[in-house]
Amino acid sequence: MSKRVVTFGEIMMRLNPQGYLRFVQAQSFDLTFGGGEANVAASLAQFGLPASFVTAVPKHEIGDCAVNWLRRFGVDTSFILRQGERLGIYFLEFGASQRPSKVIYDRANSSISQVKPGDFDWEKILAGAGWFHFTGITPALGDGPAEACLAAVQTAKKLGLTVSADLNYRKKLWSREKAREVMSKLMPYVDMAIANEEDAEMVFGIKARDTDVTAGALSSEGYKDVAKQLQEMFGFKQVAITLRESISASDNNWSALLYDGGTFYNSRKYKVHIVDRVGGGDSFGAGLIYSYLTGKSPDQAVQFAVAASCLKHTIFGDLNLVSAAEVETLAGGDASGRVQR
Amino acid sequence: MSKRVVTFGEIMMRLNPQGYLRFVQAQSFDLTFGGGEANVAASLAQFGLPASFVTAVPKHEIGDCAVNWLRRFGVDTSFILRQGERLGIYFLEFGASQRPSKVIYDRANSSISQVKPGDFDWEKILAGAGWFHFTGITPALGDGPAEACLAAVQTAKKLGLTVSADLNYRKKLWSREKAREVMSKLMPYVDMAIANEEDAEMVFGIKARDTDVTAGALSSEGYKDVAKQLQEMFGFKQVAITLRESISASDNNWSALLYDGGTFYNSRKYKVHIVDRVGGGDSFGAGLIYSYLTGKSPDQAVQFAVAASCLKHTIFGDLNLVSAAEVETLAGGDASGRVQR
Amino acid sequence: MSKRVVTFGEIMMRLNPQGYLRFVQAQSFDLTFGGGEANVAASLAQFGLPASFVTAVPKHEIGDCAVNWLRRFGVDTSFILRQGERLGIYFLEFGASQRPSKVIYDRANSSISQVKPGDFDWEKILAGAGWFHFTGITPALGDGPAEACLAAVQTAKKLGLTVSADLNYRKKLWSREKAREVMSKLMPYVDMAIANEEDAEMVFGIKARDTDVTAGALSSEGYKDVAKQLQEMFGFKQVAITLRESISASDNNWSALLYDGGTFYNSRKYKVHIVDRVGGGDSFGAGLIYSYLTGKSPDQAVQFAVAASCLKHTIFGDLNLVSAAEVETLAGGDASGRVQR
Amino acid sequence: MSKRVVTFGEIMMRLNPQGYLRFVQAQSFDLTFGGGEANVAASLAQFGLPASFVTAVPKHEIGDCAVNWLRRFGVDTSFILRQGERLGIYFLEFGASQRPSKVIYDRANSSISQVKPGDFDWEKILAGAGWFHFTGITPALGDGPAEACLAAVQTAKKLGLTVSADLNYRKKLWSREKAREVMSKLMPYVDMAIANEEDAEMVFGIKARDTDVTAGALSSEGYKDVAKQLQEMFGFKQVAITLRESISASDNNWSALLYDGGTFYNSRKYKVHIVDRVGGGDSFGAGLIYSYLTGKSPDQAVQFAVAASCLKHTIFGDLNLVSAAEVETLAGGDASGRVQR
Amino acid sequence: MSKRVVTFGEIMMRLNPQGYLRFVQAQSFDLTFGGGEANVAASLAQFGLPASFVTAVPKHEIGDCAVNWLRRFGVDTSFILRQGERLGIYFLEFGASQRPSKVIYDRANSSISQVKPGDFDWEKILAGAGWFHFTGITPALGDGPAEACLAAVQTAKKLGLTVSADLNYRKKLWSREKAREVMSKLMPYVDMAIANEEDAEMVFGIKARDTDVTAGALSSEGYKDVAKQLQEMFGFKQVAITLRESISASDNNWSALLYDGGTFYNSRKYKVHIVDRVGGGDSFGAGLIYSYLTGKSPDQAVQFAVAASCLKHTIFGDLNLVSAAEVETLAGGDASGRVQR
Amino acid sequence: MSKRVVTFGEIMMRLNPQGYLRFVQAQSFDLTFGGGEANVAASLAQFGLPASFVTAVPKHEIGDCAVNWLRRFGVDTSFILRQGERLGIYFLEFGASQRPSKVIYDRANSSISQVKPGDFDWEKILAGAGWFHFTGITPALGDGPAEACLAAVQTAKKLGLTVSADLNYRKKLWSREKAREVMSKLMPYVDMAIANEEDAEMVFGIKARDTDVTAGALSSEGYKDVAKQLQEMFGFKQVAITLRESISASDNNWSALLYDGGTFYNSRKYKVHIVDRVGGGDSFGAGLIYSYLTGKSPDQAVQFAVAASCLKHTIFGDLNLVSAAEVETLAGGDASGRVQR
Repeated sequence: MSKRVVTFGEIMMRLNPQGYLRFVQAQSFDLTFGGGEANVAASLAQFGLPASFVTAVPKHEIGDCAVNWLRRFGVDTSFILRQGERLGIYFLEFGASQRPSKVIYDRANSSISQVKPGDFDWEKILAGAGWFHFTGITPALGDGPAEACLAAVQTAKKLGLTVSADLNYRKKLWSREKAREVMSKLMPYVDMAIANEEDAEMVFGIKARDTDVTAGALSSEGYKDVAKQLQEMFGFKQVAITLRESISASDNNWSALLYDGGTFYNSRKYKVHIVDRVGGGDSFGAGLIYSYLTGKSPDQAVQFAVAASCLKHTIFGDLNLVSAAEVETLAGGDASGRVQR
Repeated sequence: MSKRVVTFGEIMMRLNPQGYLRFVQAQSFDLTFGGGEANVAASLAQFGLPASFVTAVPKHEIGDCAVNWLRRFGVDTSFILRQGERLGIYFLEFGASQRPSKVIYDRANSSISQVKPGDFDWEKILAGAGWFHFTGITPALGDGPAEACLAAVQTAKKLGLTVSADLNYRKKLWSREKAREVMSKLMPYVDMAIANEEDAEMVFGIKARDTDVTAGALSSEGYKDVAKQLQEMFGFKQVAITLRESISASDNNWSALLYDGGTFYNSRKYKVHIVDRVGGGDSFGAGLIYSYLTGKSPDQAVQFAVAASCLKHTIFGDLNLVSAAEVETLAGGDASGRVQR
Repeated sequence: MSKRVVTFGEIMMRLNPQGYLRFVQAQSFDLTFGGGEANVAASLAQFGLPASFVTAVPKHEIGDCAVNWLRRFGVDTSFILRQGERLGIYFLEFGASQRPSKVIYDRANSSISQVKPGDFDWEKILAGAGWFHFTGITPALGDGPAEACLAAVQTAKKLGLTVSADLNYRKKLWSREKAREVMSKLMPYVDMAIANEEDAEMVFGIKARDTDVTAGALSSEGYKDVAKQLQEMFGFKQVAITLRESISASDNNWSALLYDGGTFYNSRKYKVHIVDRVGGGDSFGAGLIYSYLTGKSPDQAVQFAVAASCLKHTIFGDLNLVSAAEVETLAGGDASGRVQR
Repeated sequence: MSKRVVTFGEIMMRLNPQGYLRFVQAQSFDLTFGGGEANVAASLAQFGLPASFVTAVPKHEIGDCAVNWLRRFGVDTSFILRQGERLGIYFLEFGASQRPSKVIYDRANSSISQVKPGDFDWEKILAGAGWFHFTGITPALGDGPAEACLAAVQTAKKLGLTVSADLNYRKKLWSREKAREVMSKLMPYVDMAIANEEDAEMVFGIKARDTDVTAGALSSEGYKDVAKQLQEMFGFKQVAITLRESISASDNNWSALLYDGGTFYNSRKYKVHIVDRVGGGDSFGAGLIYSYLTGKSPDQAVQFAVAASCLKHTIFGDLNLVSAAEVETLAGGDASGRVQR
Repeated sequence: MSKRVVTFGEIMMRLNPQGYLRFVQAQSFDLTFGGGEANVAASLAQFGLPASFVTAVPKHEIGDCAVNWLRRFGVDTSFILRQGERLGIYFLEFGASQRPSKVIYDRANSSISQVKPGDFDWEKILAGAGWFHFTGITPALGDGPAEACLAAVQTAKKLGLTVSADLNYRKKLWSREKAREVMSKLMPYVDMAIANEEDAEMVFGIKARDTDVTAGALSSEGYKDVAKQLQEMFGFKQVAITLRESISASDNNWSALLYDGGTFYNSRKYKVHIVDRVGGGDSFGAGLIYSYLTGKSPDQAVQFAVAASCLKHTIFGDLNLVSAAEVETLAGGDASGRVQR
Repeated sequence: MSKRVVTFGEIMMRLNPQGYLRFVQAQSFDLTFGGGEANVAASLAQFGLPASFVTAVPKHEIGDCAVNWLRRFGVDTSFILRQGERLGIYFLEFGASQRPSKVIYDRANSSISQVKPGDFDWEKILAGAGWFHFTGITPALGDGPAEACLAAVQTAKKLGLTVSADLNYRKKLWSREKAREVMSKLMPYVDMAIANEEDAEMVFGIKARDTDVTAGALSSEGYKDVAKQLQEMFGFKQVAITLRESISASDNNWSALLYDGGTFYNSRKYKVHIVDRVGGGDSFGAGLIYSYLTGKSPDQAVQFAVAASCLKHTIFGDLNLVSAAEVETLAGGDASGRVQR
């Protein structure tokens, strides 16, 4: 079995009105839990890899709910701190057709945002592990989490782990300037960088040429250029970029490219009829990590990762609850959706 | 803030089996409330305009439910009469793909259908208001409502309000002959007429050339001709026509044209993946009224109105629960449906 | 009124997580009942024909549930045996887009699989009936059901009924060799054979040329050849083949061809946006039986049957809860899905 | 098997907010169907007796729903007329503790209320049957139903059926004077009369001495006197009176007495923790009819009937979905509610 | 009509697992909104009095939800400020029998807790009003709300309004010392004080003799003494004390006493089988306010108020959705819970 | 922390109609998982003890669901075998008042019933553990499970674990004779025996004097005698007997006695208003095991255990999702059910 993967970040309660109801129509919320790095850990656990998620959640039953959610899906939760006052929450309203989905965050002052240097014993947490993953959301939560993140990547490198980071810029959490400053300190410890169509520009000012995001048309050439610039800036071993063409809230095209400093690997492009696109990027990251940990080639890796995240779009909740075998079937070319009996 | 808009008509209880269940499969009904003019008032209230809905509903708790529903969404309900025996009901079954949606009406003998001349004090109701709106459904409910409607438009004109009417022909409620007779008396008081692809022919015998409705293909030229004929017949200041191309119960194309007696303004055409198309025309009417009350140009008006009603197709229930800002975003060209965080 | 149709087979409890939830996300299951021959009987009952379903279910309340389900939808259940230990179950997870639907069977040792020769009094059951229908699933359930099936078709022919069979090969239930052996004994009594794109090859080794099922592209010519081979092998009066092109779990193209030993009749092809495709083949069979019992021509029959099964794809559950009039509307060319008020 | 029982009356759609929600809180309704005589027929069908329910419901799908509901639970629906405009509706809000349940009727102009003399062919409907049952609600629906009811009981007596009537006075449907006039014409054909604590007084002015209904305390002696007066007035073979002591909306005491013109038979008294008390009286009537048709003694009959209706209070919906064996267990003295495995 | 009542405080989102599920079992939450003073305003609105609720909620859709909730139930929301970052939340788990209900608060940093002196224009808000009400929760939210509360009561007294306060001590929000300090400044402006069995002791150190709260047995004499001490301490015109005997989470006894400085008025005691006891005290307060505003005697007032709050225990959600007529029926002695048709 | 507890048995899918619906009313099932020994493990995990559950479930997603369910609630599932064909199922209908709950088992041929000697490596499974628990259900599942059970208790004793057994006789699974034969071989390895009011008689023919189970009245003296006889028969260190008085399906009295070969310890008796009584006995067993592992006295142990199982009756599902602290509160005497804020 592969070595253990450790991810570090925030897990939030997610509350969404049922179906396509708007917030103002709701008399109930579906309850799930998710967050960038938790999603990656859960996806890896479905693939059969040992995966630990590290965070802090309050001691009360709402904290229990979050821990149990991950435990149910096979994530190791033994390093989660139980402290602080509240669990972050995000409210999600599903869009449809021309109406976009909406996310309202209520995450300030969450337990994880209040952690202090020294709360996490990274030597112990990372002992025997093979991979560490975080996203740009974690350091954006506050100075405490940012410092914890730095300590984690430093320890990870010291212990010989591979480190991956999804840039994941969130403008509600910090400014571009602050993001660039903090992320620039973390990037030198990162082996594999993952970004979507906006992150590179927002955080590092790297522009994809000839692309108008709202128009839904992406230039593959432009993104190659972005990947190259990113790679050159920090010396990443791999840079992966997900390419979303948003036809509407119901239909997206989804593909990715991977650059290993030498060659560009383009994935197949999937036309996805969307059930739930939250966590799409995270499932891609998990797919890449799984691929590298199980010895796939770069070409296979990007195909596996984009197939995994294609499937994520068809699954309710943040977590990509698909097996590696299911991903392999799609990556192998069977996208017919025929009933499996 | 804009002057108050007053709409007058019937609000019904709407009962639909959940999801795509057929009537005969139901063991529960989703409960909402709606009706042409109530939908217009509610949409305007979401846009931030003061809007009053005038009707009659019974004194008991089922009547309370209808009033509360509107109140929740910001509609002024202080002129609603509490009298009569029952609230009209309509049963709705959602279609999908080649299976059409079905509506079964159970609205006979509703409180509003039993109103008598003099039940409504239009001088008081319309005092200080700027706009009056009704649809062809109201006078079709009976002689009492028809007379009340006539009194309303006469008072409205006397007090200087703008009057709009959505022709909205309903064959289950009255014959084409009766409709033409009654509507012809009301039209002289109307400034803005709204019609869909069938109304003009059904009520006034005006034909759109080269159009086969069941084939789902509409001729834009034909509709210009219809608009022109309508305008000439009653001297409307504006005639708006919504153009629905029904690909299937799940997918429609939706656009509109506006004629101001001089120029034709064509809206963008939206390909809509449908959540709930009931109230589509009403949301268009509300969009037009909002546009004129807030000083938009005819071109902006038809674009705003059709964008508003495009969004309506993505929202469960009769009411178009979208803000003016959301409509502006779509009318401004962003139809990508990307997540709003 | 037409003569009574009798179908014979298994009815199972069907349990599916709500909406697009995966099995591992479920905290509740939607509960319905279905099975090939039960579905055919129920569909015929909606069309207004007298239809009896013959099976065995346990005496307890779970058996009652299955009987009541059919009774609710107008199926004659008076010949159902109440014996044995359990009702077969199947678990269904709805797929979406590139993620396929999944079926997990838990049907071993069901009451119907344990029936013995002589349990059914076919002379009585078939007295006065006009048509007998079964699928390849029934004889696959065990030697008892297979013998009962043989007794049924022999009695049916003796009494002058028309016999139809849907090949419906299920690899989880028996081997291809066993299927061929048993089915070859039953086919001589069959007048009308129905098959999908895989059955003919699986059971009788008949190959459709130039067709790659997973690629979703079917050759109409190839299927004509299959139909011809089938007809020649057993002397069927009619051979019908349904043609499914699986674009994704959400979108399929659906059509059929009918061969009467002389002429090939091709149906219209429908692009279906899927609500629930289980029972698609059964609804086609019911459409054919209805067509022949009500005197339609072969061309009308295949058009009616494929329109019926097109509608089935839009209806939750195994049963095709549509009226003959609704099918006629679609078969007559109105696929616009416009609201029926 | 016993001879067929025929009941005649109205079946309504019942809509209730979920759980203990008030009407004004509802965003969905549970959907069931019921009505006095339909409830009796359904209860008898659960007991294993052949039972036909006669009514009129509209041709559309809402009418189908009502028919299917009864069919599902084994009631013969073949004599139901499909005509008229609407199905009656009643809205039900469940009370709890000191808050009473509320019923709002919306039943005017239902199909059954509009029937005309001659619509029902009673000779055919009652041929071969052994028992006819109606309640005081049916003749209260209008002159048409009242005349149909008279024709039914006259035919029933002519054909030798036993006739039972539940007085069931509904003040919303008719005045006490009108009720007395019409019911007095029907009673001479009735063998068995059933009444609750208010009916005898409301319809025939017969008073139970020493009883204050709202105080929840009933005098058994008083009711014996009522039964005796009723018997003497119309010469009934049996008079049964149900005795409800309403402790609260959640807890009732429930018992009955039966008078056969000679002896009074008192049932056990049950303390019931209520799930749904609608249809309590109807389930008692069905218990009596079953008892007499299966040859029970008067003492056994009243014990069976009151045990049956005790169980009804624990079952959601109007219909008493319990088997005769379940009733026998309770009537036999086992009220412990221990889990049946 | 009575003069307007103004209440001031926090409204929170309330999230509870369905039925009796524990937090850790939830996959959805019922969504409602409530808070002490909002509950009072909503209850008064159901009684037909004009009632304004004053608070601050964020500008986004979650804030809209709270406003709409109140608007739906007839509360005037025109003075609600739209500012700040978040809406307070509380999680509620329903207890049953020996298992207590649980509340987890997540209300820190809510919009209302962040208000500043001057945010509210009390002269305008209270103009023309007759009554002002707050609870001890409002000043506990922070210095800003406490100052706003002081400004409100000062203005209220200046304008001649009656002022009522429910002590409502919440130990999670502030210490007993801080509570005493702040509340002591507010009490001089208060005419009517309401307290439950713990408040007087917690805030002002006043002890009820001979009472063990956890034992569920309360001494009426002891509470008279408490009321007297409270009255003497601040010169209240009325002191009302609610008396809850907690038999279990499912069953409580509920009564109250009122002291007007001269006489003690004891209410009837109700045995309540509980649906939802949150808001019980608030509904009592609303009952008192209504009683005094409509001219009831002290004896009638306490009977009305305790009957109102008895009914609240049977209603889901914080809001007491009962009419004055319903309360009068219960207060008048009819607690039988018989179905109202 | 305490040593690990290992339990061994069957986990089943549990399907129940919602609320108090009968089986024949269901259109959906609530989905949970449970079984005697799984319930004990889950309860111990909530108390904070390490607990492993050992069983076999099929490899497919339905098996995953069962494993995930336990994992979610903190049970160690690493020793669960993934083999065999199906997961056992039980259908549960909730009773109310006089209507008993019903259980229909569909557990034949489950994975666990098909295990073979040697499938479980008990030396490994029990290494380092402190306690082994099973119930009489496990050996009743078949010879394979019975042999595995024997191997387990033999290994447990060899490794020095304490062994507890809940007699739990299930007449649907085996005869009394077979039960006595098999159980008599297992009992010599058992330290602590747990039984309810029927088990001792059914399995070992030991009678409680003066007790009529259906009458709901239990003689405490009689049970002491049973405990004594049981102890003498097999030399148990402790014998615990749960005493259920079934007032109705809604209300039970619940207590227990513990006999340690010397002294009898009687617990408090709780009047429980029932939410879900399935798993009541298992939660008692878990309470006892926890008590002994954490060093409670016999008196404390029986009080803790019966308080724990009292709380179980208020919780939906088989699992007793309460913390040790919650149990201590109740065992300590606070049964008031007051809201915990």
